[in-house]
Amino acid sequence: MTCENLFTGIPPQLSEELVTVLCRAKGLRVERIVSEGQRSPDGFWYDQKRHEWVVVLEGRAAIEFDGEPELVELERGSYLNIPAHTRHRVAWTSPTEKTVWLAILYVGE
Amino acid sequence: MTCENLFTGIPPQLSEELVTVLCRAKGLRVERIVSEGQRSPDGFWYDQKRHEWVVVLEGRAAIEFDGEPELVELERGSYLNIPAHTRHRVAWTSPTEKTVWLAILYVGE
Repeated sequence: MTCENLFTGIPPQLSEELVTVLCRAKGLRVERIVSEGQRSPDGFWYDQKRHEWVVVLEGRAAIEFDGEPELVELERGSYLNIPAHTRHRVAWTSPTEKTVWLAILYVGE
Repeated sequence: MTCENLFTGIPPQLSEELVTVLCRAKGLRVERIVSEGQRSPDGFWYDQKRHEWVVVLEGRAAIEFDGEPELVELERGSYLNIPAHTRHRVAWTSPTEKTVWLAILYVGE
């Protein structure tokens, strides 16, 4: 049995978000997402079929929820659960460092 | 929508491992486990019904797998997938710092 590392294998510069699937099973997907200043396009909203539990492990970011005036700002260790079909977008990620997210997308009550 | 933080709410000293369920759904449980020198008892093996994807987010630890002579040593960012019924034990965790694990226990092919 061997292990890998979440914080390795990240290119020095990212022209777009880097998404790596770390674990996949029926009704479950675990992704590492690395951002470097990327954000959702203006007017774009995620509207996902699956629930998403997400944590920021490095860096800083903010998520906007449709109909909520305040952004949810995330730093190292910040986590939240986004129920399916909760419209949201990435308002910003830190442009000066890598933001490493771990996202668990899941089905289920 | 608000967020919480993985690295807060940890007592300064732990007489035993601290397990906090962060997310629960059908066939899924996400736990934060904080260790401070704790290890599995000699001769004890985990033999879990569920698969476990686990990552160390802070600290250091080692897992022993039944029948494998070498320990799998884990540091910040190290992750591995432990299939159901893979007998294993925590050989050691760092006694001088907190080791924060994130464990995803899941059912499914």
